[in-house]
Amino acid sequence: MSTRSASDIRNESRFAVLRQLLTSGMATRQQLAVATTLSTATVANVVAELQDAGLVHVVGKGASVGRPSSKLAINNEPLRLIGVDVAETYATAALYSLSLEHLHEHTEPLDDTDNQPATVVAGVAAAVRGVLAAAEISPDRVGGIGISVPGQVMPGTGVSVFAPNWDWHQVNLRDQLEAKLDLDVGVHLDNPLKAVTVAALWLGNGPATDTMVVVNLGTGVGVGIAIAGRLVRGTCNNAGEWGHTTLVQDGRPCRCGRRGCVEAYVGVPGMQLTLAELAPDHSAVALHQDEFIAAVAGGLDAADPIMAELLDRTCASLAYGLGDVVNLLNPDRIMLCGWMFGALRTWIMPRLTDLVAAQALEASLDVVSLQPLEIGRNPVTAGMAIFALEDVLARRGLPSRVV
Amino acid sequence: MSTRSASDIRNESRFAVLRQLLTSGMATRQQLAVATTLSTATVANVVAELQDAGLVHVVGKGASVGRPSSKLAINNEPLRLIGVDVAETYATAALYSLSLEHLHEHTEPLDDTDNQPATVVAGVAAAVRGVLAAAEISPDRVGGIGISVPGQVMPGTGVSVFAPNWDWHQVNLRDQLEAKLDLDVGVHLDNPLKAVTVAALWLGNGPATDTMVVVNLGTGVGVGIAIAGRLVRGTCNNAGEWGHTTLVQDGRPCRCGRRGCVEAYVGVPGMQLTLAELAPDHSAVALHQDEFIAAVAGGLDAADPIMAELLDRTCASLAYGLGDVVNLLNPDRIMLCGWMFGALRTWIMPRLTDLVAAQALEASLDVVSLQPLEIGRNPVTAGMAIFALEDVLARRGLPSRVV
Ligand SMILES: [Zn+2]
Ligand SMILES: [Zn+2]
Repeated sequence: MSTRSASDIRNESRFAVLRQLLTSGMATRQQLAVATTLSTATVANVVAELQDAGLVHVVGKGASVGRPSSKLAINNEPLRLIGVDVAETYATAALYSLSLEHLHEHTEPLDDTDNQPATVVAGVAAAVRGVLAAAEISPDRVGGIGISVPGQVMPGTGVSVFAPNWDWHQVNLRDQLEAKLDLDVGVHLDNPLKAVTVAALWLGNGPATDTMVVVNLGTGVGVGIAIAGRLVRGTCNNAGEWGHTTLVQDGRPCRCGRRGCVEAYVGVPGMQLTLAELAPDHSAVALHQDEFIAAVAGGLDAADPIMAELLDRTCASLAYGLGDVVNLLNPDRIMLCGWMFGALRTWIMPRLTDLVAAQALEASLDVVSLQPLEIGRNPVTAGMAIFALEDVLARRGLPSRVV
Repeated sequence: MSTRSASDIRNESRFAVLRQLLTSGMATRQQLAVATTLSTATVANVVAELQDAGLVHVVGKGASVGRPSSKLAINNEPLRLIGVDVAETYATAALYSLSLEHLHEHTEPLDDTDNQPATVVAGVAAAVRGVLAAAEISPDRVGGIGISVPGQVMPGTGVSVFAPNWDWHQVNLRDQLEAKLDLDVGVHLDNPLKAVTVAALWLGNGPATDTMVVVNLGTGVGVGIAIAGRLVRGTCNNAGEWGHTTLVQDGRPCRCGRRGCVEAYVGVPGMQLTLAELAPDHSAVALHQDEFIAAVAGGLDAADPIMAELLDRTCASLAYGLGDVVNLLNPDRIMLCGWMFGALRTWIMPRLTDLVAAQALEASLDVVSLQPLEIGRNPVTAGMAIFALEDVLARRGLPSRVV
């Protein structure tokens, strides 16, 4: 088992101070101590280190009980961070400042019929070049880059162990990416479930709590889990594959090779199949995924009874799956995100709250809050930029990862 | 979020040393350092504290590379620990030494038609009196007592929040137990899932690993979860209610009020229902739970095809449920225990291994080991005695809980 060290404690204090600065924008040492519940001495030490490293600077004067005190903020210059979200049909690179402001974004389409690693790597490189060109900055200002790819990834080795939709096995993606990108910094590789969870830990809906679950709803679905502020990776970074827990025994085939998985009903292709079952001739059945979800939203707006039935069935499946998470993990907060959720949240949230209540044990239901993840940025690119920020901090001798 | 302190680190070092002494029986400081991967200086400090408190003593001389070194062990005198396992039909009190040797046990039947708290408390008191009488020791030698009751419990307040089979809500059980038991020490209250998990952490199958799951199979079923050596309690100590995750939508009614829960198929009453569906006239259908499981074992021994079918169906349900745990949490070790499992493990283990493989994602399956929990003691009474041991340590200023 891992044993905590004094440096772990220091890292957690640093994380707490940085999180507060990132979410509040600026604060005095006194305000940081109050908000983080750290001692004023610890805050002063952490701030001094961050100032020495050029990561925090004084931006003005405040006044606390008569005596003046400096207002501090993250120093955004000169470094930039890049977070990349790679999916089957696109690679989106977003440029962030060190305070995680979203500055620019560039999306490169990927050809989902050509899924060779070299093709995907070329698409990522084009997206990164695109965002640097849009921002008119040179590559040497990039302080860190994090790239999210679907499937199972080992961040330590940079290997994509398994990407089911691409039929990748043990692809050393980091080496190929680093050769193609030609940046001064190494690539941090991870998957979207880990990205949205660190985004929630650093930026989301108030400080980390006992047990947080982040639900990502899109083409694929999955959850991120954080316990006591720490990302739960599982034994081989494969925790959170809730999309491949069973909803219906011997149910619909799933792309993982099993049957009846949550994803086969709640993922966007699963929703398309549900619509095809409900109304084979419906005009939305044959649409591409993003157009399909837009059509669902349009239909719900227009009170289309078929789309209402589709939503009800999808929410019922989602509630069964989330009820299992509530009963197994007893979280205090479940935060939803993902592009499907973003498009349909107005309709999903009220239905889902009631449906989850029917599936959850009373005591566990009483303590859990179901809410949209509110971070004002794409949580996948933001989360990957946060991994890049963690790399910047670590390179300066100031690690702040909560492990 | 909780921040680690220097004392947490010290507590974890103490835990690691004590665990090693408990599982190896005796060891030199050098052996402890090697086994725990702690520095020799840390081991020396921890041992000195434990010796000063009278909890560890020298039991002989070893020799390491020429120079003599003391062999150390837990000092079993004079205190004793009591762990109590309370279920619907019995209360078993077991007496343990400080090194967690199982010394004596006494079981008091409980009348499952009279589930008033006062009746249950009286049964627990009778069980404790019984084990003290069997051991011929006076109550003042009891250094700590832990009592496991079914349902949701808040250890901090001593309240049984909810015990579904007893229809208890917010019963302050600790006050009633302490009044009735009249011991010099307070009662530590918790539930069986937490007990079996701490038993696995302190005594089970090698040191704690990244993500461990302990599966308890009896009348009710549930799991305990430990991540990085820490018991996962959830927000209100209700984590692990895997028995009330959904196996079959709109399936069998469950005692929790929902339908289709894992427990309704895998718990012993669920198995009885499966047999009644398979063979309504089978002689085992009407037996009490323990006689029923004995009849299942007898039938399997005699190659009874009905009992083989019952086992197959039960194992298939169990595998669906455990596959979900593997995919969601990506554990490295799943350890099975519980009275039903104990009676049928010879038949369950080989079938279950193959069935779980069919439900688990390949990458997560590769790293998980499915095994019986081997601690050579009843894991519920042992786990509650461990909570009592933790109380003894805490009272002496030597907390060793991994939190
Ligand atoms: Zn699947
Ligand atoms: Zn249930």
